[in-house]
Amino acid sequence: MHRSRVYALLIDTPGPEAAAAASFWAAALGASAVPVPAEEQFTSLHGAIPGLVTAVQSIDDPNPRFHIDIETDDVEAETARLLALGATQVSRWLECRVLRAPGGHLLCVLPVHSTPAVFNAGARTWS
Amino acid sequence: MHRSRVYALLIDTPGPEAAAAASFWAAALGASAVPVPAEEQFTSLHGAIPGLVTAVQSIDDPNPRFHIDIETDDVEAETARLLALGATQVSRWLECRVLRAPGGHLLCVLPVHSTPAVFNAGARTWS
Repeated sequence: MHRSRVYALLIDTPGPEAAAAASFWAAALGASAVPVPAEEQFTSLHGAIPGLVTAVQSIDDPNPRFHIDIETDDVEAETARLLALGATQVSRWLECRVLRAPGGHLLCVLPVHSTPAVFNAGARTWS
Repeated sequence: MHRSRVYALLIDTPGPEAAAAASFWAAALGASAVPVPAEEQFTSLHGAIPGLVTAVQSIDDPNPRFHIDIETDDVEAETARLLALGATQVSRWLECRVLRAPGGHLLCVLPVHSTPAVFNAGARTWS
């Protein structure tokens, strides 16, 4: 038995346009754009969407995309669950697994990043 | 003075894969997949992300993407605000304006779809 919840929405943006995208989305959504220390590809958009971490990620790809991060207390079990539902594994990145959903969208499975209170309040339990 | 808030996250999926994508995302996020009456390109994912309407949209495009819907009490003013921030207008669809953000992502501006209570609680005011 393990748990997971949707943690974040990442606005993946081609590198040369990432700064402009971060400025736009911050202003558009009334958020503050805050660089993430030691992870310079990310600019967090604090307060953009209630309950959902939102950030612009600079990517080495000419095609803009979004992806969803799912946080879990068991990365192995959550990845296995999503693979059984039809996702395919694309890569690993640090402790994260990058998967592609049926239909072609990317999602990442990562260890719990929220506070215990936030995770416990929103997580679903899978058996 | 007008108001807006992020209303929805749309998982835009190439038509032939849209049904499989809706099934996957519903199971992955613990949501129920519900076809939207009279708008058969949409399958709503009830309960997928708290506070954010989530749906799969079948699209006539081979490239999967996401887009964000912003609801507002003044579509003209909100569109003008986002254009001034650097977005470009792509098209109109019914009462909605489809814009492209700096960085290449799509967003739609549409009239308020939430209940007054939800809109009033979450909307930001722009002057």
